[in-house]
Amino acid sequence: MSVGLEHPKKLLKISGIRLSASSAEIYSKKRNDIALIEISPGSVTSAAFTKNYFCAAPVQISKNNLKNSEPYFCLINAGNANAGTGQSGIENSQATCKALAKITNRKEHEVLPFSTGVIGEDLPVKKINKTLPDLVRNLSEDSWLEVAKSIMTTDTIPKAVSREIKISNSIVSITGIAKGSGMIKPDMATMLSFIATDANLTKDCLDKIKDNALKKSFNRITVDSDTSTNDSFLLIATCKAENPEINEKNSKEFEIIENEIIEVCRELAQAIVRDGEGATKFIRIQVFDGQDSSECLSVAYKIAESPLVKTAFTASDPNWGRILAAIGNSKISSLDISKVNIYIENICVVENGERSKTYTEENGKKVMEQDEITLRISLKRGSCNEEIWTTDLSYEYIKINAEYRS
Amino acid sequence: MSVGLEHPKKLLKISGIRLSASSAEIYSKKRNDIALIEISPGSVTSAAFTKNYFCAAPVQISKNNLKNSEPYFCLINAGNANAGTGQSGIENSQATCKALAKITNRKEHEVLPFSTGVIGEDLPVKKINKTLPDLVRNLSEDSWLEVAKSIMTTDTIPKAVSREIKISNSIVSITGIAKGSGMIKPDMATMLSFIATDANLTKDCLDKIKDNALKKSFNRITVDSDTSTNDSFLLIATCKAENPEINEKNSKEFEIIENEIIEVCRELAQAIVRDGEGATKFIRIQVFDGQDSSECLSVAYKIAESPLVKTAFTASDPNWGRILAAIGNSKISSLDISKVNIYIENICVVENGERSKTYTEENGKKVMEQDEITLRISLKRGSCNEEIWTTDLSYEYIKINAEYRS
Repeated sequence: MSVGLEHPKKLLKISGIRLSASSAEIYSKKRNDIALIEISPGSVTSAAFTKNYFCAAPVQISKNNLKNSEPYFCLINAGNANAGTGQSGIENSQATCKALAKITNRKEHEVLPFSTGVIGEDLPVKKINKTLPDLVRNLSEDSWLEVAKSIMTTDTIPKAVSREIKISNSIVSITGIAKGSGMIKPDMATMLSFIATDANLTKDCLDKIKDNALKKSFNRITVDSDTSTNDSFLLIATCKAENPEINEKNSKEFEIIENEIIEVCRELAQAIVRDGEGATKFIRIQVFDGQDSSECLSVAYKIAESPLVKTAFTASDPNWGRILAAIGNSKISSLDISKVNIYIENICVVENGERSKTYTEENGKKVMEQDEITLRISLKRGSCNEEIWTTDLSYEYIKINAEYRS
Repeated sequence: MSVGLEHPKKLLKISGIRLSASSAEIYSKKRNDIALIEISPGSVTSAAFTKNYFCAAPVQISKNNLKNSEPYFCLINAGNANAGTGQSGIENSQATCKALAKITNRKEHEVLPFSTGVIGEDLPVKKINKTLPDLVRNLSEDSWLEVAKSIMTTDTIPKAVSREIKISNSIVSITGIAKGSGMIKPDMATMLSFIATDANLTKDCLDKIKDNALKKSFNRITVDSDTSTNDSFLLIATCKAENPEINEKNSKEFEIIENEIIEVCRELAQAIVRDGEGATKFIRIQVFDGQDSSECLSVAYKIAESPLVKTAFTASDPNWGRILAAIGNSKISSLDISKVNIYIENICVVENGERSKTYTEENGKKVMEQDEITLRISLKRGSCNEEIWTTDLSYEYIKINAEYRS
């Protein structure tokens, strides 16, 4: 199941990035489950990782390796998260980095490992290392889609987006991929996402773009309120495009590339929600007129994570009492409920804290039957707005998570 | 569905308390849906209400009436929560209090109204007022069970408990009832609970017992993390027993009655979880060796409210990686994950942050198949312990909440 999500369109090559995918037989079913991304020297990268205390072994290693140098390789596997595996998890992940460094004549700390899949099982180091020569041999600028497919777990559709823009008369391209469907409430980045551009810009500018992009994309989604142990986000600029180097954060050129990267991130983040486990609806929650971002987000997440609100969406039931109860539980300081308005699409459901005079159950039902629904809440106590995206909670979610060891 | 929950045993009368139930036809199906509790003068009461900002009209009125006098009547209806109904909700609820006061020659503020059911619909004042003469005529000390049944909504079994103890050689009785099954994460009290004792004690002592009892019972449960708009808890002492008045909070007599009331509250709170919407498992989560109560509860609730952990319980799947991820998400300050131990029943699953050497999937599976499961987490950073109770998340939960307008 997925909502309004299409198979990725043609993806653009990014000069300076080559990729490949293969099967290390981590899954019992035959499929690609390992991928390699090569980043040419001269690139700059900016990364973000999960804030879960139990962060996985590859996350710990990647964070550390990034302190030593710019990365040359990303080595990614699906089917095994290498989380909750303690010191031997660290050693296993390091063993794969070391093996790759050896056959490519690079340094071990130039390899960033990434894993996604079941928590608590040992990483199959031998199987992974056996695929490395093939992965290296097959590196190609054309393999973005193949890699996007190889890192899927409960995802039903690969997630990949490309954009092309003009900066100072030079063509600049951006291509990004992501995976994730359950255990989705990124607190930094999504499960796994890799985005590359050939734009020429400084590390400092790239870091700033990363921070802003996360705040408007991956850090604004929740499928099931569970933050993963493996969330990782990598933004790479190969600097191969011909635009003059962007080094000013308030320049017009900075704004152009930032906007475009944010759009790619938003599309990928939304794709994860559209393909959320068991999703039958894609729901935008917009909270208006709050005092600050934090209280708008409290309200939005209380609604998005309420099982009662989520099941009402599954049933296309305009059960606005559950939305109202969720807002009341957001515990924001001294909320005046007699000012709260709730709209489902363009239907005013609650006005000044009680059922709107113009509301009819029939109108409510009609908009709730849509696949994509925008819920708008006005708190009328400030000028801050926030938007997040979520899914409903269906039988299918229970099926996936009660039957599949993910 | 319910887990290990039996139909209430014989209930004890409480001298000074009379009750009755009837049908006001609030439900389309014929059933009792309205109840009256009469409290004799000379009693003391102590109450607690939901902290949801959108607290229902009857909650607002009851809170206010309690400021004016001890209550004489509790008027309770099921099938309609009278929440999200604004000023007309207040007036409707007041109209029923006024009508009851009139036919019984009491003051309006001596009536406490309570409602539970669908949010956002108008209270059927006429239907309710029509039943009042019958309710008053039928008041009897014997009707505890009848009242417990009349206030049920998605509950499958009425919840009622009695206890008898001796204080200073006098027999003292306690009887309590409660309702609730979904929208259960009381932040003060459960959906609705009324507990009475004939013990002779001061209001001051009763208030203290209420606070302590809530902290060890209704404020330690979660079915679906949604706090209701109508939670209300009322503890009544009719002072009719012959024990010398208890007025010292550190006396032996205070301790005896407090313990007994806490036991009644714990049994009722657990009954709500056992009868939680769609529950197939009753889960105790015990967090040991935390620095303080608040961090133990953060860890416990993160586990209890994780849809991934809950669905693993439904499937009897010892998917401990999800438990570990939930602990990692509790965001308690500077948790050292390499000290964390996780036990399912007596099976050590995680030791010092990684899979225990002695753990086998087979042993894990065996204990996960039990109906009642105790999960123990040791944080090894302090001496505080906390325990909460929750359920799994099953297809049946989705069915109840996607098909029933509750």
